[in-house]
Amino acid sequence: MRRVGIDTYQELVAYMRSDCDICKSEGFEAHSRVEVWRGDRHIIATLNVVHFPMIAMQEVGLSEAAWRALGGADGDLVRIAHPAPVQSFSSVRAKIYGRPFTSDGVNAIVHDIVAGRYSHIEMAALITACSGSRLDLTETIALTDAMVKVGQRLQWDADIVVDKHCVGGLPGNRTTLLIVPIVAACGLTIPKTSSRAITSPAGTADTMETLAPVALDIAGMRHVVERENGCIAWGGAVSLSPADDLLIRVEHPLDLDSDGLLVASVLSKKIAAGSTHVVIDLPVGLTAKVRSPEAAQALAERLVKVGAALGIAVKPVMTDGRQPIGRGIGPALEARDVLAILQNAADAPQDLRERALVLTASVLELGGKAEAGQGMALAANVLDSGAAWRKFQAICEAQGGMRIPPQATYTHPVLSLHRGRVVAIDNRRLASIAKLAGAPKAPAAGIVFQAPLGMRVEVGQPLLTIHAESPGELAYARAYAEAQENLVSLLEV
Amino acid sequence: MRRVGIDTYQELVAYMRSDCDICKSEGFEAHSRVEVWRGDRHIIATLNVVHFPMIAMQEVGLSEAAWRALGGADGDLVRIAHPAPVQSFSSVRAKIYGRPFTSDGVNAIVHDIVAGRYSHIEMAALITACSGSRLDLTETIALTDAMVKVGQRLQWDADIVVDKHCVGGLPGNRTTLLIVPIVAACGLTIPKTSSRAITSPAGTADTMETLAPVALDIAGMRHVVERENGCIAWGGAVSLSPADDLLIRVEHPLDLDSDGLLVASVLSKKIAAGSTHVVIDLPVGLTAKVRSPEAAQALAERLVKVGAALGIAVKPVMTDGRQPIGRGIGPALEARDVLAILQNAADAPQDLRERALVLTASVLELGGKAEAGQGMALAANVLDSGAAWRKFQAICEAQGGMRIPPQATYTHPVLSLHRGRVVAIDNRRLASIAKLAGAPKAPAAGIVFQAPLGMRVEVGQPLLTIHAESPGELAYARAYAEAQENLVSLLEV
Repeated sequence: MRRVGIDTYQELVAYMRSDCDICKSEGFEAHSRVEVWRGDRHIIATLNVVHFPMIAMQEVGLSEAAWRALGGADGDLVRIAHPAPVQSFSSVRAKIYGRPFTSDGVNAIVHDIVAGRYSHIEMAALITACSGSRLDLTETIALTDAMVKVGQRLQWDADIVVDKHCVGGLPGNRTTLLIVPIVAACGLTIPKTSSRAITSPAGTADTMETLAPVALDIAGMRHVVERENGCIAWGGAVSLSPADDLLIRVEHPLDLDSDGLLVASVLSKKIAAGSTHVVIDLPVGLTAKVRSPEAAQALAERLVKVGAALGIAVKPVMTDGRQPIGRGIGPALEARDVLAILQNAADAPQDLRERALVLTASVLELGGKAEAGQGMALAANVLDSGAAWRKFQAICEAQGGMRIPPQATYTHPVLSLHRGRVVAIDNRRLASIAKLAGAPKAPAAGIVFQAPLGMRVEVGQPLLTIHAESPGELAYARAYAEAQENLVSLLEV
Repeated sequence: MRRVGIDTYQELVAYMRSDCDICKSEGFEAHSRVEVWRGDRHIIATLNVVHFPMIAMQEVGLSEAAWRALGGADGDLVRIAHPAPVQSFSSVRAKIYGRPFTSDGVNAIVHDIVAGRYSHIEMAALITACSGSRLDLTETIALTDAMVKVGQRLQWDADIVVDKHCVGGLPGNRTTLLIVPIVAACGLTIPKTSSRAITSPAGTADTMETLAPVALDIAGMRHVVERENGCIAWGGAVSLSPADDLLIRVEHPLDLDSDGLLVASVLSKKIAAGSTHVVIDLPVGLTAKVRSPEAAQALAERLVKVGAALGIAVKPVMTDGRQPIGRGIGPALEARDVLAILQNAADAPQDLRERALVLTASVLELGGKAEAGQGMALAANVLDSGAAWRKFQAICEAQGGMRIPPQATYTHPVLSLHRGRVVAIDNRRLASIAKLAGAPKAPAAGIVFQAPLGMRVEVGQPLLTIHAESPGELAYARAYAEAQENLVSLLEV
């Protein structure tokens, strides 16, 4: 085996010469799926055939992802074989043709995904087959359970372990970074794991990473939680739901919604994290992930029922999803909003503060730290007193040291061409602009949104400011933003 | 640009250095989609980032498929840009969520596929969304029409242009190579284009290619048809339905059935080929592509209605799909069966002969060369007299010269472990064995099937013989075949 230094992202690729004896005797060709064994460890990779001496005869080159997955060193001896057909894909086919998943079928699928046996197009077919509302309750329970089984599962020295999650779709809705320190300051155990962005310009882990390290292993999380009651870690680093982590890589570019996959993704991570009581924020709005109160109600019921079937208490909270929360959209820009609230700054975004307090109140009440109706006052008190800010700093220190979020080199304001009062905002296109600007991979990139609902806007007044780390990304985001009509809808006044 | 000699099969891949100014300024990363322009010509490729000096700064390496698609020479100047988002994929999303395709939506999708704007996972999502019976009649008409519009469309100097097609799923069913010479000998125009294998061990084009060149361009086809009334060419070489050719590459590994995609695939090629009257063979059997008479009836109606909407007469013919036809399964092995029948050899497989005559009769009657009920006698006469064999040789010569099909180096008989009478055969698993043996890419590979329905089999008697071009493939096919139960079901006698 040899490392060839080609980064194919998550795809495992093996490179062999077309005139090599092994290719000839085994009948391997470009795009064959091959099994590469190094001792007991093996991967399934896609073969790329090379026509020049970049690779020697009897040598297999490995892409960066394949190299990492297989381990070892240049020159290690490997064995190459045809992989067995992926039997579990017949369950995916049956589902596509309209037959429901069985529990055994789902277990086998999830197991094969984690073993690296699914190609990208097979995962894309699976995701498509689960999209919309194609998974029923029984299937969703089976999928969630299967996802928990293939990953690690944490145990904590507490009877009550609380957690919160937002189903996303609302740019800037970074309440976790406020809820965790308040709840932890109140003495509840909240070992929060968050994901990186799936289809949004920033996930909570992306935002937190601009303030402190988030790639904690389980020992690291345990250390932080024992000391501070809470942490904000990246879930991917602890492999709580490795199947979900792999599916997300294909879900992201397809940008498809699925109630069943969403519930399985959220709850598998919460159950694996050892949570017993979970508050789930469901922002509802025409351009949020959940578009109507009816859809939110259906999703809420699904979450509660799947949670109950698998032994955790789930409390969904519907919130206003009509516009971005706070001002920043993108990892570092959102982190700045959070810091302003924790520090009780005069210009801190009140909408984000209010929303965090409402959700924190639910967590405190669900976790038994406040009577019904009393959670809000307790939460506000902890925030106003500075106790939450001290706790947040302590958590950051325990996670490896607090950081200052980066600032973008390139910025450009997008100006209003009309005057009027803001009556509607397209969250999805705002998120697209932030993504075109480079978020979340470029942590300082994104937008600062300056035209909330109800604001009176004059011609030439900035609706938003694009932040980017490269001029190319700034140009693309700007071209896209300036080509949109009704990104922000104005009513003449 | 530089050719790097990496064969990624059909996927267009561009290689750039991670420390290159262009990657940095544009924010390109591993797996970014990039547009590469050479003058007016451009491709959309997936970026692989390299970490060593295989590629120079300011240089973009191209995979073999990307190199072919872009044309040009080493050192040509190219321009790299972010591609615009693929707008038409929102129509695919809408379909996945349950809203029917519109005609405009389907046209945009097909247009973008042919322009190379769809990634593999996007195509996989589209195929999944169209699988089973998820396309209704209106959508199927729109899709068929869209596929015709993006390709070439042939015109012939004849009022009646006949054609035939088999929906497949039945190993060895190679009637085309018999029907075309008989029909052409009767004076009807039959410019047959066939596909290579999609999910089967051999397509008609693969089988014909062992007997004569099939990669004819339109001028080549016209030349053959003007001289001999008929040809048997590979459809892919004339780009009659380029969207279908691209989708097939992703359909193949997924192995999903779709009535709508099947009808669009079949009829788009027939319409583009300039056919006016088409006979369609629908083999029905538990392990054939069409599993029940009800499914066949539904598919037949769909074919007739879509044909009528788009101006061609379609006559479906349901045939027995319970077992393989002839003895060979695999390109060269099937070609041998065809030759035996054309040459009126004593041991020629009678089932293949009978089936070809039935279908030929339908073509002759539909095309006006025989009264209803008289086609069979005419067809048999042309075959028995040697006129069909002479016509077949003439067609092969006109296509570039007749060839002798290759013979496999490695063979292995699979013996019966039981005795009894053959009562059922699993066509799908037989096809899998032939594919594991290397068919269709290895033309001599496949199986000779020796245990038809009704035969009495003794312990130790060969059920089939595997043919392979490499020992590795022989071993895999043999291991798979020997691990199967009830590949051939026996009833004790």
